[in-house]
This record gives sequence, C-alpha cells and structure tokens, in this order.
Amino acid sequence: MVYNLHEAIAILSRTPKVLQALLEELPDSWINYQKHDDAFSPSEVIGHLIAGEQTDWIPRMQIMLSEAGSKEFPPFNREGFDQHLGLEERLAQFTALRAQNLKILKELVTVDDLHKTGIHPEFGEVTLQQHLATWVVHDLTHLFQIIETLALRYKESVGPWVQYLRILNV
Amino acid sequence: MVYNLHEAIAILSRTPKVLQALLEELPDSWINYQKHDDAFSPSEVIGHLIAGEQTDWIPRMQIMLSEAGSKEFPPFNREGFDQHLGLEERLAQFTALRAQNLKILKELVTVDDLHKTGIHPEFGEVTLQQHLATWVVHDLTHLFQIIETLALRYKESVGPWVQYLRILNV
Repeated sequence: MVYNLHEAIAILSRTPKVLQALLEELPDSWINYQKHDDAFSPSEVIGHLIAGEQTDWIPRMQIMLSEAGSKEFPPFNREGFDQHLGLEERLAQFTALRAQNLKILKELVTVDDLHKTGIHPEFGEVTLQQHLATWVVHDLTHLFQIIETLALRYKESVGPWVQYLRILNV
Repeated sequence: MVYNLHEAIAILSRTPKVLQALLEELPDSWINYQKHDDAFSPSEVIGHLIAGEQTDWIPRMQIMLSEAGSKEFPPFNREGFDQHLGLEERLAQFTALRAQNLKILKELVTVDDLHKTGIHPEFGEVTLQQHLATWVVHDLTHLFQIIETLALRYKESVGPWVQYLRILNV
C-alpha cells in the first residue's frame, strides 16, 4: 500500500500554513464568497475543518486503537460548526487543534496499528490506515473547495479563457 | 464587473507563499507524483508557472497597454519550461519573478487601462481586464492541479471513503 505515516504527517502538518498563506488578511469579498447560497465560503470551510479535528479524526482513531469497548463510530456531523467565529479566529483554532492532534497521532500510532479496525455506520469495517489516509485527502478536498470557490468568483471576468481553465468547469 | 485590481493582486501575491507552505521540503514521493505518465508532477507545475511569468502575463499586458505596434499576441507555449531545475530552485525562481511582475503591474496599470485590448490568436479581441482576471484563475487552477495530484496518490488508500471525497472524482 502507498500509505505511509511519515509522508501523511508531512501533508497534515502543512495544511494550517497553507490556509494561512492563502487566506490571512485576504479581502472579505474573497473570504466570504459562496459559489451558491448553500455552499461553504472559504471561511466556513475552516469551520468544518475545526469540527473534524474536534469530533472525527482523533476520536475515531482512539476507538480503533482501543482493546475494549464498542468499535462502532458515532456519526460525524458534516454540517455542524461554530458559525460565529471570524476567519482569523478560525485559522488560529484550526492551527492549534491540528498541532495537538498530530502530537497525539505520533504518540499513539505505529505502523503495526494500521491494520486495526472500526465499524463505520455506513461502510461497515474500515481500517485505521484507511481512516488516516482519508484525513489527508479530506484536507486536500477542502483546500480544493476553497480554491474552486475563489476561482468561480472570476468565472465571468475571464471572458473567453473560461474554456481553458479547468477549475471553472469541474 | 466583479474584477478589481487590488483584490486580484491580493491573490497573485499570495501564490508563492501558498506553494512554499505546501511543497517546501515535502518528501519526493509527493513532489514527483504524476496522476498519469503525461501529467505534470507538482514540481513540474511550478515550472509551468515560471514560464507564464516569463512569457505570458507581462508581455501580453504590455502589448495591450502600448499605443503603437501590433496588438496581436505571440502564442503561449503551455508545455515549455526548464526541465532541469529542482523544486526548491523552481519555488525560488517563481517567487522572484512574481514579485518583479507584480511591481510592474502596479507601476503600469490603473483602472482606466482595463478596457484596453489585444488580439488573441484563437479568441480575437480580448480586454486587459479579462487577461488579468485569467492570471488569477490560472494560479488557482494550477494550485488545484497540484492538490488533485497529491490527493490521487491516496485514491486506493482511503478505501470506501473514495465516494465522499470530491477531489478524487473530478
């Protein structure tokens, strides 16, 4: 399998810095843009990432590592997060939570644990390796969501180039 | 029109920092991954961005600003770039070129120039505003390309979560 704990942590540890580099002090017209009324703005995507740090990645990992108790995951609320924080507060909170959670990951998980399993409410049995790989790709898919949202704000502005800019057409 | 020079520069000036935050010192297994044999690796995408700084954004802008001479753009080679540089050299070169080019943009262009035009080899008449908006979205589409490439490396590793991770399915 391609998955490797060290390489995965290399991506996970970079996400807060990438989000800061992209979004910190960016004008509100970008930060609060939504591609449609029900879509997350870039700022709201950070709220969703915070919720994952609090309720998904580490709690489910601990269920899979545990020798006792139920292996069933509680469901993850993909819509729920604190609506009242501003972007800078969200970035700071996400950065702190991610650092804490990577410390826990490094302390608790070795390569010998990656085959351990839990019971996903929809998928049934899943492995810790699949869960930890999903953490990486979840970061990347939401980074894509932010970038796509920013790009779509200029979909009209680019005129005829729209046809060659793939991010405007996915 | 949504396009605004100040807001556009806010994105353009962040791209080098975003690429550094994401790619600097990342393991080579990520940096050199290609989603298929003909696709750019993350490192090669930076080569393509360098070529744009050298031969596209500013030269075409200058053609549109000029009062004299042909308004026709020379074609842009979307495949051509220096194949021999390593990632860190590419990031440094892109960062330096982008800083120079934004200095030129700020010195030469005001809001009153945005209606000026050039002749694109395929599209015919295009405006400076469309060209400058395309510069922004071109950054974002190639950032998306890098992020998608990284994510696809773990397409098998995420197991059943593949269906919920949009970046693996665009």
